[in-house]
Amino acid sequence: MRTRPLKVALLGCGVVGSEVTRIITTQSDDLAARIGAPIELAGIAVRRPNRVREGVPAELLTTDATALVKRGDIDVVIEVIGGIEPVRTLITTAFEHGASVVSANKALLAADGANLHAKAVEHGVDLYYEAAVAGAIPLIRPLRESLAGDKVNRVLGIVNGTTNFILDKMDSTGAGYSEALDEATALGYAEADPTADVEGFDAAAKAAILAGIAFHTRVTIDDVHREGLTEVTAADIASAKKMGCTVKMLAICERRPDGRSVTARVHPAMIPLSHPLASVREAYNAVFVEAEAAGRLMFYGPGAGGAPTASAVLGDLVAACRNKLAATTGAGESAYTQLPVSPMGDVVTRYHISLDVADKPGVLAQVATVFAEHDVSIDTVRQQGKDGEASLVVVTHRALDSALSATVASLRTLDTVRGVASIMRVEGE
Amino acid sequence: MRTRPLKVALLGCGVVGSEVTRIITTQSDDLAARIGAPIELAGIAVRRPNRVREGVPAELLTTDATALVKRGDIDVVIEVIGGIEPVRTLITTAFEHGASVVSANKALLAADGANLHAKAVEHGVDLYYEAAVAGAIPLIRPLRESLAGDKVNRVLGIVNGTTNFILDKMDSTGAGYSEALDEATALGYAEADPTADVEGFDAAAKAAILAGIAFHTRVTIDDVHREGLTEVTAADIASAKKMGCTVKMLAICERRPDGRSVTARVHPAMIPLSHPLASVREAYNAVFVEAEAAGRLMFYGPGAGGAPTASAVLGDLVAACRNKLAATTGAGESAYTQLPVSPMGDVVTRYHISLDVADKPGVLAQVATVFAEHDVSIDTVRQQGKDGEASLVVVTHRALDSALSATVASLRTLDTVRGVASIMRVEGE
Repeated sequence: MRTRPLKVALLGCGVVGSEVTRIITTQSDDLAARIGAPIELAGIAVRRPNRVREGVPAELLTTDATALVKRGDIDVVIEVIGGIEPVRTLITTAFEHGASVVSANKALLAADGANLHAKAVEHGVDLYYEAAVAGAIPLIRPLRESLAGDKVNRVLGIVNGTTNFILDKMDSTGAGYSEALDEATALGYAEADPTADVEGFDAAAKAAILAGIAFHTRVTIDDVHREGLTEVTAADIASAKKMGCTVKMLAICERRPDGRSVTARVHPAMIPLSHPLASVREAYNAVFVEAEAAGRLMFYGPGAGGAPTASAVLGDLVAACRNKLAATTGAGESAYTQLPVSPMGDVVTRYHISLDVADKPGVLAQVATVFAEHDVSIDTVRQQGKDGEASLVVVTHRALDSALSATVASLRTLDTVRGVASIMRVEGE
Repeated sequence: MRTRPLKVALLGCGVVGSEVTRIITTQSDDLAARIGAPIELAGIAVRRPNRVREGVPAELLTTDATALVKRGDIDVVIEVIGGIEPVRTLITTAFEHGASVVSANKALLAADGANLHAKAVEHGVDLYYEAAVAGAIPLIRPLRESLAGDKVNRVLGIVNGTTNFILDKMDSTGAGYSEALDEATALGYAEADPTADVEGFDAAAKAAILAGIAFHTRVTIDDVHREGLTEVTAADIASAKKMGCTVKMLAICERRPDGRSVTARVHPAMIPLSHPLASVREAYNAVFVEAEAAGRLMFYGPGAGGAPTASAVLGDLVAACRNKLAATTGAGESAYTQLPVSPMGDVVTRYHISLDVADKPGVLAQVATVFAEHDVSIDTVRQQGKDGEASLVVVTHRALDSALSATVASLRTLDTVRGVASIMRVEGE
């Protein structure tokens, strides 16, 4: 084994960074044996060097991240700061100074992954980011390498623990959205500002990364159709139950049937209780991958948290270090298909629509006519009347999302339709 | 992209080999883009060249496998013949002539993996075998690479589709073992001679491979404790149901609590219905991996079949070809911990024991004394009497398997114990 250590710089020392430091310092013999050379933590860039960080060697702390990545003797930079800038500049600078980068930064990868990959190739170094999607669950490496000889047609999963926790609570206790959010916040599953999670930005970034790798093309977060879960009501969950379904916040990346484009979207959807994703509880993540030869694979595990994320970071660190020793690089970006991303209107899906209607003869006929005019075929209708008012729950067959949303727009113009109480897509069948 | 193709030789052209050939010939552009160079199928070694194989170019067929691997211009050899010899010699010869090898051969890897890995290293080539365990489910690469920075404590799973199909049928229909086996045979889930599956040899080979990779040590099939499922009765399944459990054929690889040795075993066991493995139906496979930082991960998918196995082979083929182009090799064997494998007696587990006893006062006290003498603590006892005969169902707390089996031996010597109707371990809690 080589005795001169590989030098590792760490950018950021919050929950994940501290755990990465702990493992690097306490498991150094194991890591050395697996890499083929010892590794040395050469510096840790933080904003607040005086904060107490148990187990983190104080002499390694610096506030000058730029100087750290410019040292020139760093083999691998681990980035667990998050956000776009200054991280993008720091990573690029690290590449320019010969370091490979291991990142957990979904936002940056989903915004500017192609550019970063190109920079890594230019400088002959690696860019790994298994931790950016679904925590410790191996997903990027299996998609990029294990399925490299297969054709992935669909990636469907729960990739945000916060929203799954909220929906799971709503489903199991009958609570409303804000009550469930409060519980998630109290238990540390939701941040003080939960926007990134509940509005689907976090899941959309992950969907962009997964779609790009799965379909060998370039997908950014701007290509991902995104709907949050803030408007999901206790009534929606109850309605799902009546259908033998539950509501999950899903990330769905699909190759379109003609093979000429792909779609990527994040939104709440009803899925049947018999679907394995329906039983994913609390803050767990689970992702289905459907490939032509492999069939349906599922990957399940803790999607967030310091230790699980650190596990993913360290797997990448070992790979990056091994490549450094062998003077090679691993499998990088593969975007050769150049498949465009189609808009949400081109997605084929099913709608569950709940309407408040006047309780008089002919209403159902009127409503059914609107569906027919838009070429949307109805699967089931459930009608419930009380005191001159009635509700009509319609579940459609599969149709283009554009036709389904045009149908809803037309329904809103009917005199007999008092309001559209809820619209939710039905997936997983 | 390099235009001179990488040359691939295929050994064996049965169900998996035909599917590999089909994908290599029909998806050549995709594979070339992912590898960075085209690949060319240079020869296919078969025993019966005159058999009709749709889509397999007849001019590539040869009966001389040795000459094929000795050609010297072959970059990667794919081996899907199976068995120990002549395959071991063919693979070694391929290494000697500079070819990397992708194999789906669990029996050979579990018997002689260390030797083959050493030969691959000696000749600077790769040995990949994702297809040897759990078909298309990425398991070996995640264990070897994604979790390279983590410490795996346990691998627990269903790795044999045939036995899972049989047990699933017994559980859902109440059928006995031979009836369920007949159905499995009729539907093509079991082979004419089902010994390798039902006696646990297939699962034991996979357990040996998984334990070796998970714990960075050497484990062969001879180190794996193996019990088949031929003695599982409809009564056992019914008994499991009463406990809120089902019976699954499990492969379990564990790091012992003191960290100084590991264990690997394959046997039928009761697991609670609430455990995710309980809902693995038909011939599917699913494997839990418990790692210190990552937590509990699950991998699920089709564990066998031509197309899924071909998917795993092709993922390895792309990796081996990429490494050839980069003049490097991937992560190979890691056996640095040199942890010994402890015998079954050292495993800590729980027993579900069903006894036929005389229906008279004092029997329970006698039986309980035997457990106490062996330091085995009882969790629950269920007593059922009829006509002077009674049955006693005892579920123990966790104890050493040696103590549990000694307890059973002592119970057999009691006058009041007419017979031990069944013994089954309880896992997954």
